[in-house]
Parts: sequence; C-alpha cells; structure tokens
Amino acid sequence: MFEFITVRELYEMILSNQPMETDSLEYVELEGWVRTNRNSGKIGFIALSDGTYFRNCQIVYEKETLKNAEEVAHISTGSSIHVTGKLKITPEAKQPFEIVATAIEVEGSCDEDYPLQKKRTSFEFLREIPHLRPRANTFYAMFRLRSILSMAIHEFFQSQGFIYVHTPIITGNDGEGAGEMFRATTIDNDDFENDFFGKEAYLTVTGQLHVEAFAMAFRDVYTFGPAFRAENSNTTRHASEFWMVEPEIAFADLEDDMDLIEDMVKYCIQYVLDNAPEEMKFFEQRIDKECIKRITHVRDSHFERMTYTKAIEYLEEAIANGVKFENKVYWGMDLNAEHEKYICEEIVKGPVFLTDYPKDIKAFYMRLNDDKKTVAACDLLVPGIGELVGGSQREERYDVLEAMMKEKNMTTDTLQWYMDLRRFGGCKHAGFGLGFDRFLMYLTGMGNIRDTEPFPRTPRNLKF
Amino acid sequence: MFEFITVRELYEMILSNQPMETDSLEYVELEGWVRTNRNSGKIGFIALSDGTYFRNCQIVYEKETLKNAEEVAHISTGSSIHVTGKLKITPEAKQPFEIVATAIEVEGSCDEDYPLQKKRTSFEFLREIPHLRPRANTFYAMFRLRSILSMAIHEFFQSQGFIYVHTPIITGNDGEGAGEMFRATTIDNDDFENDFFGKEAYLTVTGQLHVEAFAMAFRDVYTFGPAFRAENSNTTRHASEFWMVEPEIAFADLEDDMDLIEDMVKYCIQYVLDNAPEEMKFFEQRIDKECIKRITHVRDSHFERMTYTKAIEYLEEAIANGVKFENKVYWGMDLNAEHEKYICEEIVKGPVFLTDYPKDIKAFYMRLNDDKKTVAACDLLVPGIGELVGGSQREERYDVLEAMMKEKNMTTDTLQWYMDLRRFGGCKHAGFGLGFDRFLMYLTGMGNIRDTEPFPRTPRNLKF
Repeated sequence: MFEFITVRELYEMILSNQPMETDSLEYVELEGWVRTNRNSGKIGFIALSDGTYFRNCQIVYEKETLKNAEEVAHISTGSSIHVTGKLKITPEAKQPFEIVATAIEVEGSCDEDYPLQKKRTSFEFLREIPHLRPRANTFYAMFRLRSILSMAIHEFFQSQGFIYVHTPIITGNDGEGAGEMFRATTIDNDDFENDFFGKEAYLTVTGQLHVEAFAMAFRDVYTFGPAFRAENSNTTRHASEFWMVEPEIAFADLEDDMDLIEDMVKYCIQYVLDNAPEEMKFFEQRIDKECIKRITHVRDSHFERMTYTKAIEYLEEAIANGVKFENKVYWGMDLNAEHEKYICEEIVKGPVFLTDYPKDIKAFYMRLNDDKKTVAACDLLVPGIGELVGGSQREERYDVLEAMMKEKNMTTDTLQWYMDLRRFGGCKHAGFGLGFDRFLMYLTGMGNIRDTEPFPRTPRNLKF
Repeated sequence: MFEFITVRELYEMILSNQPMETDSLEYVELEGWVRTNRNSGKIGFIALSDGTYFRNCQIVYEKETLKNAEEVAHISTGSSIHVTGKLKITPEAKQPFEIVATAIEVEGSCDEDYPLQKKRTSFEFLREIPHLRPRANTFYAMFRLRSILSMAIHEFFQSQGFIYVHTPIITGNDGEGAGEMFRATTIDNDDFENDFFGKEAYLTVTGQLHVEAFAMAFRDVYTFGPAFRAENSNTTRHASEFWMVEPEIAFADLEDDMDLIEDMVKYCIQYVLDNAPEEMKFFEQRIDKECIKRITHVRDSHFERMTYTKAIEYLEEAIANGVKFENKVYWGMDLNAEHEKYICEEIVKGPVFLTDYPKDIKAFYMRLNDDKKTVAACDLLVPGIGELVGGSQREERYDVLEAMMKEKNMTTDTLQWYMDLRRFGGCKHAGFGLGFDRFLMYLTGMGNIRDTEPFPRTPRNLKF
C-alpha cells in the first residue's frame, strides 16, 4: 500500500500537475533528515529534507494518530527518520503539498551539541564543520550546483567530441611558472634521490602541458581535475586545492579559442538555469540579488574582443578625462582589477576578451605575435568579477619557443618532451583554463572560494 | 566549395549510408597526422588520423595532380598536414571511402628521430614516451575508451540523481588503513608544525570517509577522482596514482549496495559496447580475443551472492575432492587469487559477490554482523580477473564503531568528525569502491595498469 518516493519526485509530480497514476500514490513512504520540528500539543510539523531536492517536504502529525506522539514531538533537528503518510495537495498553502503522517520512526537521533540548530550560523563558523555544512541551506544549494556544473562541463565538451584526459596530479615538471608547488614525498629530508620517485615530485599547478600532448593525437581534448598552489596567501579568491577545466584544441588559433570559451560559458549558464532553478533562486534571494540577472545578461551578450593595446588607450583616455585609478597605467603593465572593471563595465558594458598581451607579463608557451612584443593570449573579463577565463594560442615553433624559454631564464631539460611535441608533427593549437571554483563564485555571488569547495584547503587550514 | 569535415563525420555518414546532402560534400577539407605514407612513383597513399575516429582515412594522391608531388612523396610519418580532395566511395575496398587529393600541405613536419615509426613497438618502450604514445593504435584506442568510460560513470550516477562530490586530494586523515601514503609538503624536514598546513598532510587513499559526510545530506552521492598509494610494489596491477569511483548511498544496506554495483557494471559494459565499438573490436583483435565475449557474458549474467563462509566450505570440499591450491584454506584467511578464481570460474561460472567476511581482515568502518565475527562487506568477483569492486555497509552505530577502532588499535582523534556523523542523525548506509584503471584493464584485457593511464606513476618512475 505504501510506495517509497523521494521529495524530488513528489515536487516534480505535483508542480507539473501530473495526475496521480494509482491510488497507491496517495500513500507514501519517505526517509530523510529533520530540518525543523515544531508542535502545538495536538498537531506538529516537521520540515523534512531527503537530499534529493532543494526544498523541504512538510510532514504534518497529529497527537491522536501517532502511537509514539510523545517521542515524535521531541525529535530533534538533524535526526534521520522514516515517515509513512498520506499525500495531501495544498494549492492554497506556501508548500504545494504535505504529508499527513500515519507513522514516524526515528532511525538516527541527533545529539544536543549538534552545531546546526535553527538559528542562522555564519559561513566562517560553518567552515569549521565541513562534514556537516552540506546540510545547511547555502551549502546544500552550492554542492548540488557544483555537481550540476561539473556535468555541464562534461556534456559540453563530450557533445563536441572532445576526449577527457586524466592528466597526472603528481608531476616532475617544476618549471611551469604558474605558482608555488607542493611536493609529494615519502621522506622528511632533501635526499630526493632516495625519495619515492627517485627525484623531486610536485603536485600539479596545471594540466595544460600534459594535455597538449594528447591534443596532438586526439585534436580536441580537455582535462578537468584538481590543481594545487602552495602560495601563502589568504584571500577570498585563492585556495591551495581547487578544480580546473583545461581544454586544448589542435588546428586552431586564438579566434577559435575565444569562440570555444564563449560557447562554453553560455552553455554552462543555460545548463545551470535549466537544471538548478531552485538553487539559483536561493542564491538570488539570499546571497546576491543580481546573480541571475548578471549571468542571463552574459548568456545573451556578444562577447567583445579588444586588444590589450587598445585597452591601454581607453584607460589613458579615461585618465585624460578625469577618471581616477589607484595604479598607474602604462603599456607593458599587468592590468589591475580596477582597470579590468573599468574596461568591462564602463567601456564595453558587457563581457570582453582582452587579447594580445605584452609577452613579458605572460607565460612562456604563448604564441609570439608578428610584432615580437605581444603574444596571442586572451583573458575573458565579465561584469561583476573581472577575469573569468585565461587562454592562449600556443607557440608551435620550436625555435621561437626555445628562445622564449631562454628569455624567461627557464631550464629546458625537464620540458624537453614538451618542446619535442613541436618537432614531431606539431600544429597550430590553442587552449584555456577555467578555474571551476571561481566560476561557481561568479554564478552564485558567493564571496569566498572556501564556500564553493567541499573540504577547502588553505594555508594552515586542513580540516579533516 | 570545400567543406571542412572530420574523419569521424565521414565514416559515420558513409557507414550509415546517408545520401550526400549537397554537391559540396563531395569536396572536403581535412587536417590530421600522417600515420603512413607510401607511394609508387605515380600514385601514393597516406593513412591520415585526425584524432576524431579510431580508423584512419585513406588519402590518395597522384603525381600529376599535385603541384608539390615531390614534397608530398617525402612527408614522414607523424607529420601534420592539410588535405583538400574529392570524396570517393569505395564499397569494394577495405576502407569504405578514400579522399582523392587535390592539394596537400604540410603544417608541421616530423623529425627523423620520431620514435613511432611503422614498425611495431613494445608497450615497455612506449611507456618511456607517454607524450607520444596516444598516437600509437593501442593507446589511441585506450585513451578514447578511458574518456568514454568516464562519461559512462557520470551518466549512470547522474541519471539516478546522485550528487558528484569533489572529495579532497590533500587530507589530514592518516588512519584509514588503506595503504601507505604520500605527504604533501613545502618543507624538507619533519618540522610539520611549520609546514604549509601546520601539520602533516597526506595525499588521499580514498574519498569514502569524506563522501560519507555528503551522503548524510544528499542521500546518494559519488566521488570520482584521483587516489594515491605510496607502496613500493612493482606489480602490473598497482600504480602510485590512479582514479577511483566511490559512491555512497544513505538509507541503504548491503543488498542495495550489491544491486547498485551490478547495475553500474552492466551499464558501463553496455555503454562501452555502444559508444566504443571500433576500439573494443581492436582490443578483441589485438590484445585479448575473449574480451568482448567476457564482458557480454557478465552483462547478461545474474550476479550470484555467496557468503565468505559458504565459499570456504566450497573450497574445503574441492580440496577433499582432490583440487590442489598453493595456499592453505581456513576460515578467517584472506582469500588468494587462486581461491577467488576457483569460486568464480569453477563453482559459480559467472560473476559472484562474496559477502560477510571475517571482521579481522576487513576495514574498521564495515558494519559488524549479528554474529559478531563477520562484517557486511562484499567483493565482486568476475571471471578473468577476480576482484573488481569492493563494498560494504558502513557501521552506523557509534559505540560499535568506536569499539572496532579500538580493537584495530586506531587513534580516534583525527577521525572524531567521522564518528560524529553517527551522533548527528546517522542512518543505515553503504557504498563501494571501483578502481577505474583496473576496470579498464578488465574491459580490454590489457595486462598492465600503466597502459591504461595517460602518464603512469610507479615507484622510481615519474615520466614528465
């Protein structure tokens, strides 16, 4: 007589106005966790979360109906329970339906020192209990969104024939210049010849170099996995461990790269709006009231393209017209956030790719332009946060790459294999990197990268 | 007039007998890498791979037609080229079509010391050049299969509402007992208080403990990511870095767990047969002529369930009947490969779950059965390789878990958070671990785990 059902199934059935298929659907069985339990003696209400849907399910219980009414009245927040009851449609109420309980059993009780009581708790406090915080609304929304956005990434690339490559986490390359690295080791001294790998081993800062090798076999490839930075910086945008999306496309130039970035960003935004509507509505109501408007605008915008040199001209013009910046503007500088914000929000008023940056402020593998001063790089700036994606066409000419590495004082020995890709049927190719956790910050308006990650790792902070 | 097309599009169009939609389709433009180039003076043939399809595309060129015929005749294996030409259907020939070139241009030549010449090369040799081996047939098949199997995993779990959790790579838990661990560090001494995280940090050996915390919020979750073992063992089945799939289901017991494992294995097999037919055919022809038959049989089998105790009885009976094993058989032992093979291939003659192992040979978190001697664990054995998946129902009773940890001489301080999950609305739950790389070995018959991984890491071996 009782049919097991999830809260998601109930909401989807009722919100889509599907007729009840059988009588049995009126009687349901649910399992989940108590978010709140309040009662007025005769009648009580439990807000139940079963993990399948963002919204809770209201359970109504009456003292007279339940055998264990006294026990049920004292079920504490956080407990896991089994409920059987009758489904009642409530079109007039806040929630579209409720379950009138015929039986409620406690499976796992919840101790009094449970840190997630009804009162609102700060994100800082919740970071101390990463094992429990997915049960708090904001994180319950965030981590479902994180799962959905992961699938958006996979589906976008797979639907276009890209091959997913598991680039290595432990790497022998130290010369990538992308940041400070952790070492992976089994010793506690510097006798690296006797370490596990017989030499120094690092945790990867980027899968790009490795994935380039695969682009030379499969044409279109991507990697999506963890990356690391051992930088001792405690900002809201830096974590020691995070996930990166790094596609690489062969027989492609910077224009193709920017087309791909634009397509991917728009696809992901649409995917999230389609597949996480409840969660996005929550972020809009509680975290950032502009978030849906902002990403919808980006989805519907043409992404402008502007050279770095042109951007500097605009900034100089702005200064001449009285706009004040904290930092000096000159050709060759690395743009500051204030400059990116001005270009994006005041000049373009929408998403913009800045391209062709001075070679001295960019990585060694970016393709040198004919002017010999700039490289074929692009940064995607979006209103609200600035840089979201960085990409480039890669240097495919062996001699030019070698000269650039020399110019940047890099040793070539650990990267000879990478250089050799240029000698063995190399071709024009390009790629980019998207910081997955920062993308989540952008979509939701969450202000701290630690609040997008299941178990965030930062300097002197390793919780479990 | 020329339409850019991929080799996959050509094969799919022609093998499905789709009519040419427009005249323009007769003239095509291709880019890719030369696998072989042979010519007899007047006429030449290039086998072209463009990375999109397992089979090559045959390019025919005639000395009289090409402006640069002399250059084309000398294009070396590995070079990247652009081809324009006319599509010619060849129903009588080995390949269903060919491209009669009107122009061939070299984009990137290939030096003479290119290690992948026509002659067949050993897997051992190819492991020395992981940046180039995806271009060799076996690895070209393997790494596309790896990408496809990854999607099979995601699609299986996502279609059932599971939440994908990025469990951390760097962990503070050292007591999981699953094997030797790497440390992640920025120092070269043992002053861990001054290390990056202010304490010892390790590379994860399993995401299970972390993902259990998420199962208590989302009910059904999975993690799919890298895991590490710092074991100094050079076998064909062990790598220092590999990928694991670890689902966890709440309000579920061992039976539910085995149902899930069976569904997943069958789904993945079907997915691979549907989405990688060319690759699987290659493995059947070149690597293991039984592989398709073996996995098809598993897909079509009911997975038997047998207790460990019953298995011991069968083995003792076999010994009484004259069957010889290298290792002694007794209740309480960890089964050896020969025993698993006998149970699976001689007794059951198909896939079988062994269940309810002695507690002393299993992990601390497995649920103690009422007999107090065994735990609710299961290992899936399949014909051909033995153990493929290991799972268990987890101990949800705080006091029983605590006693088991004490019995196994574990310190509880770094795992208090994990134990607390039992105090705060814990519930019956279960999960399992699938070694993703070993699953690839099983599907293809490849004999060495190093040949399923893009850049394999093993003791004293860290290539790039």
